[in-house]
Amino acid sequence: MTKENSIGVVKTRYFEFEKLVLENGETLSPVKIAFETYGTLNREKSNAILICHALSGDSHAAGKHRKNSRKNGWYDIAVGPGKTFDTKKYFVICSNVIGGCKGSTGPSSVNPKTGKHYGLDFPIISTKDIVKAQKKLVEHLEIEKLFCVTGGSWGGMQALEWTVAFPHAVNSAIIIATPLKQYPMNLILNDLGRKAILNDPEWNKGNYYGKGQPKKGLSLARQIGHVTYVSQESLLRKFDRQRKKNAKGKFGIDFEVQNYFDYQGKSFVRRFDANSYLYITNAIDNFDLTEGGKKEAEEIFHGIKTKFLLVSFTSDWLYPPEQVEEIYSGLAEAGVPSVYKKLDLPHGHDSFLIYNNTLGNAIEEFLKNLEK
Amino acid sequence: MTKENSIGVVKTRYFEFEKLVLENGETLSPVKIAFETYGTLNREKSNAILICHALSGDSHAAGKHRKNSRKNGWYDIAVGPGKTFDTKKYFVICSNVIGGCKGSTGPSSVNPKTGKHYGLDFPIISTKDIVKAQKKLVEHLEIEKLFCVTGGSWGGMQALEWTVAFPHAVNSAIIIATPLKQYPMNLILNDLGRKAILNDPEWNKGNYYGKGQPKKGLSLARQIGHVTYVSQESLLRKFDRQRKKNAKGKFGIDFEVQNYFDYQGKSFVRRFDANSYLYITNAIDNFDLTEGGKKEAEEIFHGIKTKFLLVSFTSDWLYPPEQVEEIYSGLAEAGVPSVYKKLDLPHGHDSFLIYNNTLGNAIEEFLKNLEK
Repeated sequence: MTKENSIGVVKTRYFEFEKLVLENGETLSPVKIAFETYGTLNREKSNAILICHALSGDSHAAGKHRKNSRKNGWYDIAVGPGKTFDTKKYFVICSNVIGGCKGSTGPSSVNPKTGKHYGLDFPIISTKDIVKAQKKLVEHLEIEKLFCVTGGSWGGMQALEWTVAFPHAVNSAIIIATPLKQYPMNLILNDLGRKAILNDPEWNKGNYYGKGQPKKGLSLARQIGHVTYVSQESLLRKFDRQRKKNAKGKFGIDFEVQNYFDYQGKSFVRRFDANSYLYITNAIDNFDLTEGGKKEAEEIFHGIKTKFLLVSFTSDWLYPPEQVEEIYSGLAEAGVPSVYKKLDLPHGHDSFLIYNNTLGNAIEEFLKNLEK
Repeated sequence: MTKENSIGVVKTRYFEFEKLVLENGETLSPVKIAFETYGTLNREKSNAILICHALSGDSHAAGKHRKNSRKNGWYDIAVGPGKTFDTKKYFVICSNVIGGCKGSTGPSSVNPKTGKHYGLDFPIISTKDIVKAQKKLVEHLEIEKLFCVTGGSWGGMQALEWTVAFPHAVNSAIIIATPLKQYPMNLILNDLGRKAILNDPEWNKGNYYGKGQPKKGLSLARQIGHVTYVSQESLLRKFDRQRKKNAKGKFGIDFEVQNYFDYQGKSFVRRFDANSYLYITNAIDNFDLTEGGKKEAEEIFHGIKTKFLLVSFTSDWLYPPEQVEEIYSGLAEAGVPSVYKKLDLPHGHDSFLIYNNTLGNAIEEFLKNLEK
């Protein structure tokens, strides 16, 4: 993996379609999907890689939106010419999930029926629905079969859902720090984040558009989430028990680690919609390929021809190695060949974003073997 | 360990003294300590065991307050005639911490200077201060040297503090699921609980007495805490992804595990004071026997003659085995002999309260060896 070249300036594009019938029977209409692509689709349309973003991501995976933008896309370290997802070879696609707040239709969009923001009138969406919408985008780009679908965390759940819902449309899948189902501890952690938002009077049952976000609630929700992305070791390395200088008052910010979390919460409030947080964490909590224990792994992955790379991180306590290994053994039971890498990285669940050579090499090796 | 006999009806008693000079230089005056004792102090006054309670505990460790009480004290399973802390042999003491809300002076007490509840006028207290107050109680009971001091979680921190602050007053110590210092991950988890309370408008800067607790905030704080007391395995065994029947509306209680946490939060609000939660978690976060890394373990435990039993639980992710082992190796470096038991119990940090034979036997064996 090198950082040698950057994508340069990219533009977010939009794809609209009339309607999507959702898993719960309701219909979302119309549907807009924000997406970006990097690299060139080959004549055979066989080099497309779809990157699915996690909870707080967006379609802006790589490059810059303006020449003088200070920030690159969220996965820029891995996407670009000569990088792990090499845009000299691959046509890379990234789209914002429906239910999100970064250009795709979500609770902060205007409901054409009322002329007002959806708020809680937005229908409940599932990971299945989100993947179904992504499929429509991929079809719109005239791609029948993805060379690869990939994602970490909830992005990995979407990628897994792709392999199960559209097995013939996925050549390979790179699933990073992802479970077969959302386990109860993770489910309750998301629920506590939602409660932090629901507790905030400024949330106002979801009707806060034009009045400002439920800042305190959303910030707390993000911080509860953020605890699950880091590890004791990473916090110890960065902060240990370092005290904040000039700490004031009772029960304020006394330690640098609190300061860091406070910053994480505040910056999240500036870039993310509270209702989207509710809908998306709800979609994550309802992710369960076993369908309430009704399906064994053998049945879930039966007949799938997709080639899998599974990655876990030793320090990840949100989706720890044993949860990734459940997929690995499930694939084995179903006779689907897969490669599994358990990487000894200290950054907790965030290791999938704090990209580095260990992870980069594992992915590059897998991609290289696919080309053989 | 047997449950053969119960203590019967016990009464909470109170000990008052004029003042306590606190670690931060402020003075708390007057000071009242609620306490209970079980068993009989022998003539030599050499059979006293002090049990230190954890965050949400109180002085009512064993027995019942009324003949027809439905509930026993919080440690009744371990304290009584023939039980692990055998009241036929030992004189067992348990007191409510200062800063608490179960009879000892705390933020919900009336400030004699103003005639109003302290609220945030209550001074910041530390684990050291709490132990200093306990020492006054022990002296009041005319005990020079405790046969044993014990506690789990924050109770263990108090017990550790006893061995360091009053080494000649402690014959032995049983320290369960306790660290040498509060690590940054744990510190931030407590902080998020405090934020949940501070975010609640009904907290009203601590002035809510007579108007009712900040229910939503305190309930959420407790639930954030409760996540850290359980384990993925215990939640999986009890709830897995079992859905609640007749779930209603968006972002309510959809899963049984949410229902369980909701119950934990609500019942906590009925029995605990929100300001006490702030003061006590703050005391926990400031617990650091290394004094900001200035003291090595060798120095901390130098010259101590106390005999130690240290216990950790494999499934405890709040104070995991490696944190207890840090004390164990620190004691070894200081030449203090200790026994360490790492118990393979599935209940997470709560294993110290979900008392059972594995833990009971470890303690009983240690106590028996002390008598030799």
